[in-house]
Amino acid sequence: MKVNVQDQRSCCPVATSLDIVGDKWTLLVIRDLLVGKQRFDEFLKSPEGIATNILSQRLRWLVENGLAQRTPDPKDGRKVTYSLTEQGEGLKIVLKAMADWGMNSLKNVQIHPDYASSVSAK
Amino acid sequence: MKVNVQDQRSCCPVATSLDIVGDKWTLLVIRDLLVGKQRFDEFLKSPEGIATNILSQRLRWLVENGLAQRTPDPKDGRKVTYSLTEQGEGLKIVLKAMADWGMNSLKNVQIHPDYASSVSAK
Repeated sequence: MKVNVQDQRSCCPVATSLDIVGDKWTLLVIRDLLVGKQRFDEFLKSPEGIATNILSQRLRWLVENGLAQRTPDPKDGRKVTYSLTEQGEGLKIVLKAMADWGMNSLKNVQIHPDYASSVSAK
Repeated sequence: MKVNVQDQRSCCPVATSLDIVGDKWTLLVIRDLLVGKQRFDEFLKSPEGIATNILSQRLRWLVENGLAQRTPDPKDGRKVTYSLTEQGEGLKIVLKAMADWGMNSLKNVQIHPDYASSVSAK
């Protein structure tokens, strides 16, 4: 099932994708989900230091747009976990391209151990 | 030559790339440069309707960060043209991944004739 995009200004696939994921923090949360992070406090600990209100907003956005799902934590029913849907998983190619470009074109880049296995893998 | 990144919060290649190009309008201007648009008024005519002040700021940002170059227009010395540097051209893989994801995962997506030959090509 494809994600429904409302009120877009353009039908270009790049522009339409950017209407959904054209934001740094959204893509960093997707990166974390791709490496298996599931809980709010795990996202908060990522090296970029996302603020709690931005994290809440971006997680809600991903769920509302069908890229992530929110489920009760099996270890603690009062908490929730997040995971990517099939559509969200599809963004791995975008994050991989971003990582490859950064490694090839920018100085002072290195892979954090949390992300070595997934985002940077061929 | 690699682009120098200052004041980054993280050394992750995804996060570092997003510090430079983690913005919708920046990536849309890069998309336009990738298909050969060169002049301010050509970028303004793109279907997303970028505002002049945002376009000016994003072009300046791309030049300052070594992703684009600004040269006098050979047809009219009072005007300038923009083109991607080698580092900027490298972003084609990111835009291609965005387009592929949009085509596969989002509804109501179609390729504008301006972009059919480049961004969506294999």
